[in-house]
Amino acid sequence: MSEFRIGIAGLGIVGAETARQLITAKERLSKRAGKTFKIIAVSARNENKDRGFTLDDISFYKDPLKLLDHSNIDVIIELIGGEGGIALDLCQRALQSGKHVITANKAMIAHHGFELSKLAEDNNVTIQFEAAVAGGIPAIKVLREGLASNQIDYIIGILNGTCNYILSEMTSSKRAFPDVLKEAQKKGFAEADPSFDIDGVDAAHKLAILSAIAFEQKINFSSLYISGIRHVSDIDINYAEKLGFCLKLLGIARRDSVAEITMALIASDEQLASVNGALNAVSYRGVPVGSSICIGPGAGAGPTSSAVLADLIDIATGLANFAYGSPVGTLSEQILDLNNSFKQCYYLRIAVTDKPGVLSEVSSILRDHGLSIASMIQNEQSEDGSVFLVLTTHKCVKKDIELAAIKISNFEYVLGDPILIPIYDSSSFV
Amino acid sequence: MSEFRIGIAGLGIVGAETARQLITAKERLSKRAGKTFKIIAVSARNENKDRGFTLDDISFYKDPLKLLDHSNIDVIIELIGGEGGIALDLCQRALQSGKHVITANKAMIAHHGFELSKLAEDNNVTIQFEAAVAGGIPAIKVLREGLASNQIDYIIGILNGTCNYILSEMTSSKRAFPDVLKEAQKKGFAEADPSFDIDGVDAAHKLAILSAIAFEQKINFSSLYISGIRHVSDIDINYAEKLGFCLKLLGIARRDSVAEITMALIASDEQLASVNGALNAVSYRGVPVGSSICIGPGAGAGPTSSAVLADLIDIATGLANFAYGSPVGTLSEQILDLNNSFKQCYYLRIAVTDKPGVLSEVSSILRDHGLSIASMIQNEQSEDGSVFLVLTTHKCVKKDIELAAIKISNFEYVLGDPILIPIYDSSSFV
Repeated sequence: MSEFRIGIAGLGIVGAETARQLITAKERLSKRAGKTFKIIAVSARNENKDRGFTLDDISFYKDPLKLLDHSNIDVIIELIGGEGGIALDLCQRALQSGKHVITANKAMIAHHGFELSKLAEDNNVTIQFEAAVAGGIPAIKVLREGLASNQIDYIIGILNGTCNYILSEMTSSKRAFPDVLKEAQKKGFAEADPSFDIDGVDAAHKLAILSAIAFEQKINFSSLYISGIRHVSDIDINYAEKLGFCLKLLGIARRDSVAEITMALIASDEQLASVNGALNAVSYRGVPVGSSICIGPGAGAGPTSSAVLADLIDIATGLANFAYGSPVGTLSEQILDLNNSFKQCYYLRIAVTDKPGVLSEVSSILRDHGLSIASMIQNEQSEDGSVFLVLTTHKCVKKDIELAAIKISNFEYVLGDPILIPIYDSSSFV
Repeated sequence: MSEFRIGIAGLGIVGAETARQLITAKERLSKRAGKTFKIIAVSARNENKDRGFTLDDISFYKDPLKLLDHSNIDVIIELIGGEGGIALDLCQRALQSGKHVITANKAMIAHHGFELSKLAEDNNVTIQFEAAVAGGIPAIKVLREGLASNQIDYIIGILNGTCNYILSEMTSSKRAFPDVLKEAQKKGFAEADPSFDIDGVDAAHKLAILSAIAFEQKINFSSLYISGIRHVSDIDINYAEKLGFCLKLLGIARRDSVAEITMALIASDEQLASVNGALNAVSYRGVPVGSSICIGPGAGAGPTSSAVLADLIDIATGLANFAYGSPVGTLSEQILDLNNSFKQCYYLRIAVTDKPGVLSEVSSILRDHGLSIASMIQNEQSEDGSVFLVLTTHKCVKKDIELAAIKISNFEYVLGDPILIPIYDSSSFV
């Protein structure tokens, strides 16, 4: 068997596990690829850390760019991370020097994926990034190859395990956000600085990548609407439950509009509602296939290295080609329906001073915007004389309900900003 | 763009939809493949049936083998069906004459897949059969490529939409099997002769194919344990529900043992339990990836033609290679642990004449076989003086509980054969 030579940049938990698999499962992996995998060189900050394998016969560098000095390396596995900087520099130079690239770097791909893929084409190599999206689910391969014959109309995903863990925990244990976040950090489900996760940026990176592949469009990352769970209240989780819903952070992308990361209520009997804890899920609808869903672990050493190594086997066996399914030059421009005529139901919670006429005033504002109420809960008056008015609407367009919410917030008896959350309903997406 | 020339054998609902897609979505499909797809010839029983497209410029034959007279055809799409006969003959000759083959024929692949794949290798072409297993889920691609780096330890699937539909309907409507089967036939969810579906053979074909790919073993179809739902009783479905379970027909394959199609109880909170109606599901556990599940439509014109066309694009773009992931010669022999030391819990329902001492007798038989009881229900005595003793066991090996059930059935107060159903528990498979 011929040799297939590897350079790994970054030996964090994913890099170390990838190297460990390549060493301990070398025989199985090489048999599968019909080529003998050999790690030629690695780069990391610390040479002497115990990672469960030895670096014998492997060149070690602190500077990732030194990997490129090995002209016999066939593929660079970039696991440093970061949107630009050294990771991007390394990938660009690797491709330019005719080396394939595998990366798990979702920020870099969401921002620079098209130019990197074009660079790969120009140099007759490939860049693959299955590990950048929901490592335990081969979502990119499923959309790009398994469904290659389809026109995909939408993707709905639970794309951030940290957020899904926090929301699941808040739901099952009836605790507030700060408390659950702290616990998630302790357990390793959330970073010390959790902003990328809880503000929806990580999920948005993944959604942008999946959308580009599914819709064959050049998705501009800055076009995405992104919100996270930082301001989620256990009050809304509890009301959602009373109304037969649960609350999730969803990535929602439609072929004909701008993608968004948003909290949404989901009816408890929807398949996505059963995806709890740190799991990820990707559901989609295509013609002619219909609707399907894949559920699995999204992060961690095992799932992510599984995806990195699958890309490696694909490249070694010649089964890897255009990262977006077709040459970058053939992808369409992004469709930006800023008018957003998509209709869905909404959940609205309004804190009001409990005075006669409040409900009638709120109802008439909704009516004036053509919005009709599907269900309503009004709780008992609390000590300060305020009550929550919680209602769900029938299907309407976003700008109508947003306008109504602004008008309602200006009404003198309304305390603070109303809480407005869309209700995801798979039947709206058919 | 160069042309990629197609012959289609069989214009049933899948063949007709495949041809229709190739004609109506020609531009999109050809763009995706970087080649212009062209149907050169088709075969079917009836030339003049209205299939929603015209056969202009397409050669028509009643005899599928005539397709081979077109030496310029690149790929034969076999959608005739049947384990052997003309379908097998056509595929063999097509491969021998250097044409690629795509097929949705699970019976043929389950029985002859290895020899056909070897024939393809010998002729430098490929045979692909994504559509043979759960058309709407790219299960073969996921296991073969998306998880190529993993050692897959097990696959559990809901692989027959007809059975899943019938069991789901029996559960939700509390009706008996014959009644629901008749309805399923009327609605088109079951064939006029439903044997292949309800006796588990169709699911077994799919499981044999998935197992070969997942475990890289030459699975002998005749080794599978196959049972179906023909004798399912609504009594057990109702007891299952009382105990917090639902009843499904599962395909269960482990790397180190013989695969089986069996009814099983599943706890209502397992992901597989939420897969209802005619849906299919494939769940798996691999190292290093962990556990995941894909859920989607398994049959019908849309999902199946989606899979056929995905194979076509893969072949046209050079992304199709060995059907089983590696050359047939490198697959291992099948592991047959006929000893079956796998432990799981069981459900046991025994009809007995309600006499003092019956329960103690049954308990002591179980105890003598090292079996311990996890839960028990005894219903009220019915008019004929009989009662049902329904119990679940803790984990045990199959042969112990089977022996105990035989001994119990010989006991004088026991009426008829005890009903023994395994309880699927995802934690047993970790």
